[in-house]
This record gives sequence, C-alpha cells and structure tokens, in this order.
Amino acid sequence: MTVIAVVPGDGIGPEVTDEAVKVLDELQLGLDFDHLDAVNATTFQTTGTGLSPSDFERIRSARSVLFGAIGAPGINNSEYGRGVLIKMRFALDLYVNHRPAFLWDARLSPLRDDRRRNVDCVIVRENSEGLYVGVGGRVRADTPDEIAIDEEINTYHGVSRVLDYAFSIARRSVCLVDKSNAVPNGGRLWQRCWRDAVEGRPDIDCSHLYVDAAAMKLIADPSAFDVIVTNNSYGDILSDLTAQLAGGLGMAASANLNPKTGFGVYEPVHGSAPDIAGQGRANPVGAILSAALLCEGIGLGKAAAAIRAAVSSALAAGRCTPDIGGSLSTREAGAAIRAELR
Amino acid sequence: MTVIAVVPGDGIGPEVTDEAVKVLDELQLGLDFDHLDAVNATTFQTTGTGLSPSDFERIRSARSVLFGAIGAPGINNSEYGRGVLIKMRFALDLYVNHRPAFLWDARLSPLRDDRRRNVDCVIVRENSEGLYVGVGGRVRADTPDEIAIDEEINTYHGVSRVLDYAFSIARRSVCLVDKSNAVPNGGRLWQRCWRDAVEGRPDIDCSHLYVDAAAMKLIADPSAFDVIVTNNSYGDILSDLTAQLAGGLGMAASANLNPKTGFGVYEPVHGSAPDIAGQGRANPVGAILSAALLCEGIGLGKAAAAIRAAVSSALAAGRCTPDIGGSLSTREAGAAIRAELR
Ligand SMILES: CC(C)[C@H](C(=O)O)[C@@H](O)C(=O)O
Ligand SMILES: CC(C)[C@H](C(=O)O)[C@@H](O)C(=O)O
Repeated sequence: MTVIAVVPGDGIGPEVTDEAVKVLDELQLGLDFDHLDAVNATTFQTTGTGLSPSDFERIRSARSVLFGAIGAPGINNSEYGRGVLIKMRFALDLYVNHRPAFLWDARLSPLRDDRRRNVDCVIVRENSEGLYVGVGGRVRADTPDEIAIDEEINTYHGVSRVLDYAFSIARRSVCLVDKSNAVPNGGRLWQRCWRDAVEGRPDIDCSHLYVDAAAMKLIADPSAFDVIVTNNSYGDILSDLTAQLAGGLGMAASANLNPKTGFGVYEPVHGSAPDIAGQGRANPVGAILSAALLCEGIGLGKAAAAIRAAVSSALAAGRCTPDIGGSLSTREAGAAIRAELR
Repeated sequence: MTVIAVVPGDGIGPEVTDEAVKVLDELQLGLDFDHLDAVNATTFQTTGTGLSPSDFERIRSARSVLFGAIGAPGINNSEYGRGVLIKMRFALDLYVNHRPAFLWDARLSPLRDDRRRNVDCVIVRENSEGLYVGVGGRVRADTPDEIAIDEEINTYHGVSRVLDYAFSIARRSVCLVDKSNAVPNGGRLWQRCWRDAVEGRPDIDCSHLYVDAAAMKLIADPSAFDVIVTNNSYGDILSDLTAQLAGGLGMAASANLNPKTGFGVYEPVHGSAPDIAGQGRANPVGAILSAALLCEGIGLGKAAAAIRAAVSSALAAGRCTPDIGGSLSTREAGAAIRAELR
C-alpha cells in the first residue's frame, strides 16, 4: 500500500485538499491516506510548534505528501511557516520547487497581446538554500541602532543539482535567472555552475536574464519561456508572476521534490486565504493539479494525464469557481472534474 | 552657476543623455554641464577602475548628476556596475531610489482589463543597504565544494529613513512590500520600523504585501497602488515590473537621492542596450523624464512640469520612437519634445 500523508492545514486548505483527495480516490490508485489534521494554526498557538516530532515522523515515513495551505491572521506566521513548510523543505532536502504554469484558457490571461499570451513553462526554484537558510542574527536588537543580518548561502552542491533537474525536464530551452551583476558571490557561483551545465547540453537552447529583466520579459512575452531556473527568493517571486499570467493563483500547483529519493510535498501555490475560508468559494484546481503532480512523482503518469485532461474539459465547459469565470462552489467544481474522469 | 555632472556611459547612454541635455538647455535654467565622457567600458577595461578618483570628485562637487547607462558585452559587468553605479549610490549615501511609473497612453499597457490598466505609482526602493552591500565571501572558492555567502544587511537607520521618505511623497497610500514570513531578521526589522512609521500617519492608507503577492497584484490591478516601499532587491524587481506595465523600459525614469543633502543621480531605468546602440532607435523619454526628476530635485519644479507636459503632448501626437508605436529616431523624438516646450 502506498501511503500519502495529507496535511490540509488552515483556511481554505482543508476545502481544496478534500477535493484533491476525492479525485485521487476516484481513480482507485491503491493509495492509502494518512490524514494529519493537527498541523494547523491552533496547534501552533497552543503548543508553540508547527510540526510535532510524531507528525514529522508520519510525514517522513509516507511515500509523499499532499499539502493544503497554512497561515492564519494574528499569529506569528513567519515562525509558523518556517516551522512547517520550510522545515519540511529543508529537513527532507526537497531541493527542487517545481512550479508549472499553463494557460488552460486564453480568456484567463491578463495580457492584451494574444500572440504572446500563451504560458506553458516551469519555474524550477532552488528550494534548500539561498535566502531561506535562516542564518543570520540581530545586533542591538529592538533598539534604534539595530542591524539585522540575513545570509544568502549558495553552494556548488545545491546550485549544480537544481540546474541538473532543470535540464532534465527541459523540452526546448532553459533560462537562468540571477542577479550576478549585483550580488557578487552567489552570482559568480551560479554563473560558474551554469557554464558547466550548459556545456553538457548542446541540444537545449540556453539563455540568461537578470531577475529584473526576467520579470519584465515575462509580462512582455511569457510564451518565450520553457524552463526558468533560479534561486529560492527569485523563484518565489517569478512563480507567482507566472501563476498570475496563467490565470491566477487558484490554478497554480507546485511540487517540493527530492528527485533522488523520489519524495515530494505537493501543494497549491495559493495560501490559506482566510478571507474566503469556509465559504465554498475557493478554487480546487490548484490542489487537484498538485495531486496530478503527485501522481507523476510516484510513477503514476497515466493518472496524472487523466487528471489534467479532466481539469481541461471541466474548464472548457465553464464548470469552475467564480475566480475564473464560473459559478460553481468548491465542491461542485471538484465534482465536475471527477465527473470528467468517469 | 549650478553644475550638473553628465555621465553618458555606454551603448545607448550617450544618445539618450544628449537629448536630455538638449531639453534642459532649451529651458535656459542656468545650468552648467560638466561632461564626464571617460566613464565607460573602455576606461574600465584599460584601467580596471570604473570611476577614477578625479571623476568621482567632479561628481561629488556637482549639484547633481545626469546619468545615461553603463555596461558592455564581454566585460565583467558586475565589477564595472558595482564600481560605478553602486559605488555612487553607496559612497554618496543616495539611500532612496525613487522610481515613478506612469502610463502616459493607455494603448501602451500590456494589460487587457482597461478598468485596471492605469498606472500612477512610485516605487521607493531602499538604495544603500540590503543585498547590495557587497558583504560576504566564498569558502573553497572555485572548487566543487564552494560555499558562497552574500549578506543582506538592514539597519534601523536605513529602513526608517526610507520609510520616512515614502510617507513624505505619498498622496493616498503606502504599501510595504517585504518577505517577513521567510527572511526572519530583516523581515522583523522592516515590520518594526513600519509599525512605528504607520502610527505617525493616520492620514495615509497603509497596507502590507509579501513580495510574491505584490508581484501578482501589480499585474492584476496596478491602479491599486500609490507608493510602494521596499528593500533594495525587491525594489529592483518591482520597479522593472511597474515600468513594463507603464509602457516599457524606454519610458522609465529614476532618481537616486539623498533627500537630506539634496544630491541626486538621475538615470533612465533602461540599461546600455548594446544591441541597438548607435542606430538612433533608442527611446529618449526615460532620459528626458529623468531630467525632469533632476529639475524637481534641485528646486526647479516648474521646469519639471513643463518637461512632463511636453512629453505628454509629443506622445499624444504619436511623435515618438518605434518601441512605443512611433516612427521617429532618437534625435527626432527629442526634437519633438523640445518643440512642445517652445
Ligand atoms: C545594473 C544593476 C546593478 C542595477 C541594480 O540592480 O540596481 C540596475 O538593475 C538598476 O535597477 O539600477
Ligand atoms: C509562505 C512562504 C514562506 C512561501 C515561500 O516563500 O516559500 C510561499 O510563498 C511559497 O512560495 O511557497
């Protein structure tokens, strides 16, 4: 039996995760779900811990994880987020954050130029180092003379393995995005690893952009990109940008992966959205497409393709939530996708 | 006599700076121009220095600086850029990077939704610390075990003064953009300074977004923003994004300011664009609007307004370069704007 840990989390997390689990159930893939319902803001507030050691063990012993979203108003979301999401990424060495962006329906594009509207790219975000290492400190903390230091740490090991992954999934091209003209040490390292990686792949069209230029170019012509590979911080920003260009956060899926162990944490890119929680308005597509990525990650490529085809048909028929022009509730939108699977 | 140092630089820098100087000349403002033509890639390559001590002295003793662009293919642009642009920002403590974005003509917007197309905001970018401090180093450099460290340094002094500036120019609202949910020390400091600043300004509508959400929201509805204040790195990215939403880099102006001394380095946001250099195709508007910012910075508000009105009329008449739908050369576009001044 393949065990999938399910972490619904807070806000709209449980609503959308429910729909994703039902889609996987529908496909009868022989998956066993271990529901970790105690990973949430209330637990964090009462125990001070985002992820208890026993919950972490259940996660680690699963085949992979289906994650909803965490975060709630009025709590220390930095500590909470670092204690759950970033903890999983680092402790399980999920060094790739794979974020595909695909424009399912041209009407969802915010862009005017229909020749350039098309989005079909993957942001490969380094997910285990960079500005997210949590190394640093404060001098004269909480005084008017405070100095706050956060270190961005990049390693040859970390950069070269994420570049390898980017090339392993590229269909046409890989674009490196960095800021090597301003951030000297990491910039130089990324450039060196990049030169080495490019040399081994004459079959792939390779290019480089500084992050500011990349942001502009993504708006000017998203259709130009296939794979974009970048560091943890720029990947965070650019993947939200591409998600927006592909119809908004409601549709965006992601995979936190260790390609070597095959372990992954799969999550919609949207957060817990407390403002619309409990109203049945959340779009389940991001969570359902994350389930498709999960299938792919555990060797169920056919199931992944089936889920995507079902999403595509349901969207084409306008059977979706209001954020993308439909009038269905979260549950109805999930049911519409499951109906396409039958 | 008020002396303005003029640094044309490389690529299209000289072409566009020329037009900006001619606009200032036309207005007969009693400005004296000190041309520093030796600040360029050739000098950097032969001497290894971006800015010689004597050039730096000429810059420092001027009232302000009109800057073109630097950068050339095949040289170490990181060292060169850090040696000129970043050197000026840091050595002259130009702690504000003021980057207005204004959509002069709705036809230039890349966005589809005409209710939300409007862009009239200013990115206030911290310009003297953050990830640009150049502090850090490399362990086991140039080996397969390399560790590269770049420190992001934020200080109470630096953060609070840039927030002060943001509030000083706000008309309706200020939005703080940070990543305090992931980058703990600087995040906490920005949040603390922000709470203090907000308290003093009940008249201004204050909001906060994480940088990933800010990038999305800028595409979804740029008209929602007045002043955005953020750190050096996010300001770099978001200001290119807003420039693109306001018609592209050709139009974007910026001011590197020390609001206390009144000194400024004014530069178009576009770079040296070596691919179109010498062809008369560069758009001079970014440089000319930077000259308008310069006028404002040295107390010539009427001249600034006159330049902007002239730009507006020339654009409305379609008298502009091909990148924004016209058919004029750089010189002709400059002349068209000057003609409006008469
Ligand atoms: C050239 C580069 C170092 C610079 C920066 O990042 O500050 C530029 O992109 C800018 O925005 O002025
Ligand atoms: C919640 C936050 C810390 C997280 C990140 O920045 O990694 C989120 O924005 C994401 O992209 O998964």
